[in-house]
Amino acid sequence: MSATLRTLHAALGGVLHGAADRVVHRIAPLAEATEDALAFVAHPRYRGAVAHSRAGVILAPPDLVADVMARPDPPESGWACWASPDPYLTFAHLTQWWRRHVQPRPESSGVHPTAYLAPDAEVHPSASVGPMAVVESGAVVRAEAHIGAHAVVQARASVGEGTRLGPGVVLGYDCRIGARGIVHGGTVIGADGFGFAPAPLPDGSGKAWVKIEQLGAVRIGDDVEIGANCCIDRGALGDTVLEDGVKLDNLIQIGHNVRVGRHTAMAGCVGIAGSARIGAHCTLGGGAIVLGHLELADHVHISAASVVMRSILQPGHYSGVFPIDDNRAWEKNAATLRQLHGLRERLRALERRLT
Amino acid sequence: MSATLRTLHAALGGVLHGAADRVVHRIAPLAEATEDALAFVAHPRYRGAVAHSRAGVILAPPDLVADVMARPDPPESGWACWASPDPYLTFAHLTQWWRRHVQPRPESSGVHPTAYLAPDAEVHPSASVGPMAVVESGAVVRAEAHIGAHAVVQARASVGEGTRLGPGVVLGYDCRIGARGIVHGGTVIGADGFGFAPAPLPDGSGKAWVKIEQLGAVRIGDDVEIGANCCIDRGALGDTVLEDGVKLDNLIQIGHNVRVGRHTAMAGCVGIAGSARIGAHCTLGGGAIVLGHLELADHVHISAASVVMRSILQPGHYSGVFPIDDNRAWEKNAATLRQLHGLRERLRALERRLT
Amino acid sequence: MSATLRTLHAALGGVLHGAADRVVHRIAPLAEATEDALAFVAHPRYRGAVAHSRAGVILAPPDLVADVMARPDPPESGWACWASPDPYLTFAHLTQWWRRHVQPRPESSGVHPTAYLAPDAEVHPSASVGPMAVVESGAVVRAEAHIGAHAVVQARASVGEGTRLGPGVVLGYDCRIGARGIVHGGTVIGADGFGFAPAPLPDGSGKAWVKIEQLGAVRIGDDVEIGANCCIDRGALGDTVLEDGVKLDNLIQIGHNVRVGRHTAMAGCVGIAGSARIGAHCTLGGGAIVLGHLELADHVHISAASVVMRSILQPGHYSGVFPIDDNRAWEKNAATLRQLHGLRERLRALERRLT
Repeated sequence: MSATLRTLHAALGGVLHGAADRVVHRIAPLAEATEDALAFVAHPRYRGAVAHSRAGVILAPPDLVADVMARPDPPESGWACWASPDPYLTFAHLTQWWRRHVQPRPESSGVHPTAYLAPDAEVHPSASVGPMAVVESGAVVRAEAHIGAHAVVQARASVGEGTRLGPGVVLGYDCRIGARGIVHGGTVIGADGFGFAPAPLPDGSGKAWVKIEQLGAVRIGDDVEIGANCCIDRGALGDTVLEDGVKLDNLIQIGHNVRVGRHTAMAGCVGIAGSARIGAHCTLGGGAIVLGHLELADHVHISAASVVMRSILQPGHYSGVFPIDDNRAWEKNAATLRQLHGLRERLRALERRLT
Repeated sequence: MSATLRTLHAALGGVLHGAADRVVHRIAPLAEATEDALAFVAHPRYRGAVAHSRAGVILAPPDLVADVMARPDPPESGWACWASPDPYLTFAHLTQWWRRHVQPRPESSGVHPTAYLAPDAEVHPSASVGPMAVVESGAVVRAEAHIGAHAVVQARASVGEGTRLGPGVVLGYDCRIGARGIVHGGTVIGADGFGFAPAPLPDGSGKAWVKIEQLGAVRIGDDVEIGANCCIDRGALGDTVLEDGVKLDNLIQIGHNVRVGRHTAMAGCVGIAGSARIGAHCTLGGGAIVLGHLELADHVHISAASVVMRSILQPGHYSGVFPIDDNRAWEKNAATLRQLHGLRERLRALERRLT
Repeated sequence: MSATLRTLHAALGGVLHGAADRVVHRIAPLAEATEDALAFVAHPRYRGAVAHSRAGVILAPPDLVADVMARPDPPESGWACWASPDPYLTFAHLTQWWRRHVQPRPESSGVHPTAYLAPDAEVHPSASVGPMAVVESGAVVRAEAHIGAHAVVQARASVGEGTRLGPGVVLGYDCRIGARGIVHGGTVIGADGFGFAPAPLPDGSGKAWVKIEQLGAVRIGDDVEIGANCCIDRGALGDTVLEDGVKLDNLIQIGHNVRVGRHTAMAGCVGIAGSARIGAHCTLGGGAIVLGHLELADHVHISAASVVMRSILQPGHYSGVFPIDDNRAWEKNAATLRQLHGLRERLRALERRLT
């Protein structure tokens, strides 16, 4: 459970300052790291935090090398600095290297004897299938893919090379996910979209809902990560689509026929209603809602908990959240808000009188 | 994977214009449909979209027949129009017919050998139970019902005729769902409601929470559809109730002792807190929240992302969402909002001075 | 399915008035209870509801004994009152007693033959493991714990004494939950936190997201209850922590490296973004959102659906929700809200003119 700094540097590049034969036992946050740990600092604006860190090695931008090396009270082996022009990206690569070489994920290999594979399911010999997983008729699981415990790959669905489905994931019939994807536990891909036509009840009391069968599927590109307990519904006629590189956090709802552009990222609890089209390179903060049939251009950024009620065709940063306040102040302001239009009229009347 | 227009018409009614022996290969959205496809248009207000569609057959209201048939550049067999006084409802019935006859859902039949049925579970011979599903002691699964892969029907629970539980669904002990229901993957029916009594901690630092065991269950009527990864909690003393014809989208939370009236529909990510009573024929937009112990009358419609903080006893359409704006404008308006009550006082002072 | 009042009193204390040998057949809400039922009233302010209740026994505060006993039209055996200084707390204990002695939860015992236990998993002989559950290599399940049907305890994870994991729960590798916990169905503990570093795409169109492997785990204290279909993500470097006595409702998202202080409770659909620190004895209403890296002091109470956008360092009650209104009024007020800052400027201009 350790690696020398020299090894890390050889794998990931950058410029070393200080003892390269130092052993790194763990990666830790800057404030908590001890002398046997490596920490990282993403930007020169965190210069102040560097001075107080006891991390033996700090992965830092070149501008901070002097600060890292000049920290007081160094250990016997001295401090080390690993300089990178983009320390955050190097840190991401480091965590991947660490996961592969130092702290591997526990994993089943091969097909677990308790899994059920339909006779005509096609599972590549290098794929692994966990305990109690189910791969139904006509489904395809490609090389190096992993199907987690209790996951279900329904009929004719397809899992791309190296893609990992977590425990209990459902990949619905005819749905496809590309290569190098990750789907975390409990996510359901390909449940029916929410579609009903109203039909008058005979008693005239109102309408009942008649189901519109959802005849499409879900298509997911390469390098897509989807968090836990999300729902990606199948399309009504065409498909619901997540393009390459999309990243979704947990508990996200993607309605039927939504299209999410490549490299767009959404934080937890986001809801995208049916037929919305989200551009590429967008970000949506946690709990944001996008109403149905709307369009978001590329490079649109929506703040957490904001509700998109109209299409947004210009790149930019958009927000709409009631500011939190102590409850008494909020009550007064919220009550006044219900009269806001009236206040505007009164203000206008005053202005008219004075001109 | 096709049907003649004549066959569809024979099954579903309406009036045909054009070649009835035309073969329909797929159902597609108006804008994407090609000559071998059927599309639909719900309302004369979409007349403009009809003119540009290449759909061989268009299911349309009678007012649009002439438009459909007069489109330029017809295929050799000419255009066809399938007129219906309620094209959206006919479309819904068409999707159901298509699902049964042309594009059937893949399905297990009988009891899968890897399923576990308690010796005293009662599963009708015409019901099907998927791989690894569990039906516990005293549970009842009625005729033509389907229990999905990994679904769990707990002790003494009951699944009505023709009802389908998706993969991984949990129907808790003593809970019941009626006939012709659909529950999508990952939904948990009958987890404990959230009930605790506060008890002072010995050290005076605050209170601990003492669990109130939830002694009720969940009762779900006929023709109810529930989306994926929802939670319908069991009642504390009485039952949580969803009446006939209720439709819930994904990721919806229904607290303990809630009652939802018949034919009410809720979009994704809605949360209904404990003991709320929602009337019949209501709709709740995505992400709406209803606080506990409130009452909504019949025919109340709540906009997406709105928060119901008081009972609503009059039918109507209600909203409460902060409008989204570019971030800079939002920041200014939100900051001012925190002084809104003060602004009202200042306006009032001016008004007093001027009268 | 019944108990004498004398037995209940002997187990739980308080002062009895009326016939102690009365048999209680069920516990019911005050308004619905019949003469064979016990109901409770928490506070003298509900005095009015007592007068109309037909409950044979009412658990009540001492102030209400006279009201309970003086109700008109008593049954042959007369009314009974069970007085407690904290009836709500006594009621909570009563439901627990009732669950144990009168209405026990159906339960598997021992290890179900369809479960899969890795050869080196350590499952205490008094623990029970449900159908199809999976306990992976190196995992520990302590005395009297229960692993529900289809639940997965991943490698090296640990389940404390008496803790119950519901159906389909995932406890991720290296994650730990303490004693006497409850986790309801479908909850995923230990999925990856949402962490990515941006890396420019070669075509200059924007950035791709490079995964930051999540090297921490989740640590959960004693007496913690977590609802259904929640997500508690593993930490990026350190651990995500829920302290003793925390209570979470359903569909809650806890991001990586969050710390939730002891005895804090959150209602359904709450989202806590990464690295937030929530104090002890806090409450968060349903649908509340806390942004990342923020801090909430102890004893902070957040109203339902409010969004915490800055740290809150003083105990108290905080809110931020747009008030719901009929749709027409909301539209006017929301439109005006987008000009609010301008209105303030106009008001200020008027004030200047008049001074």
